[in-house]
Amino acid sequence: MSYDVYDSECPARAVLDHVGDKWALLVLHRLSQGSTRFNALRRDIPGLSQKVMSQVLKRLERDGLINRQAFPTVPVTVEYSLTGLGECLTANVGPLLRWAEANMEQIKAAQSAYDARVVEAA
Amino acid sequence: MSYDVYDSECPARAVLDHVGDKWALLVLHRLSQGSTRFNALRRDIPGLSQKVMSQVLKRLERDGLINRQAFPTVPVTVEYSLTGLGECLTANVGPLLRWAEANMEQIKAAQSAYDARVVEAA
Repeated sequence: MSYDVYDSECPARAVLDHVGDKWALLVLHRLSQGSTRFNALRRDIPGLSQKVMSQVLKRLERDGLINRQAFPTVPVTVEYSLTGLGECLTANVGPLLRWAEANMEQIKAAQSAYDARVVEAA
Repeated sequence: MSYDVYDSECPARAVLDHVGDKWALLVLHRLSQGSTRFNALRRDIPGLSQKVMSQVLKRLERDGLINRQAFPTVPVTVEYSLTGLGECLTANVGPLLRWAEANMEQIKAAQSAYDARVVEAA
């Protein structure tokens, strides 16, 4: 069966919703550097609440992109890592993050120019 | 100045929000095939309302990723195209869309397995 993201019924669109999420991109890219515990992920990605982090991790696990492994320590230790599928996706995520960082000056200049035009026209 | 998307104050995070949006990815990729009118874009991307399409296009224009050109026809014709910056970004978007399409079978299988485990555990 073949999929086309330009078909409104295509299930790949839901996956784009999950992986197109800013937080998911940050989590996937962080995990591409090695498996990580929940608390370490939270520390590495400031601005993300515990609740949202849990939701993001559940979605990515359900999509088969990350593994969740619980160790019987007290308290329980949970570690997340990329699956093979997740690694294959993440190879496409790094360039997007690098691009956003590398082009921020140009984007900020474009935003200022746009806002000035909008004020002028108002 | 350098940017780090893992810094919660980094403005690149807002840009990831815009370009990480599923609809923005679909619009950018469509425009990478050539400049397009508003109505043609809507036709090519079914499932996207006129209102949301307008919002997506405004955000992308403000970020300097697409150009909006109005022609003095009756009624006015508006054409959208990628800027140089948008073209550079879009080179990173295509692989992500192709990836989602190519791996849907594996993702659907993972989702079924996850849902079965969750039902079992409940």
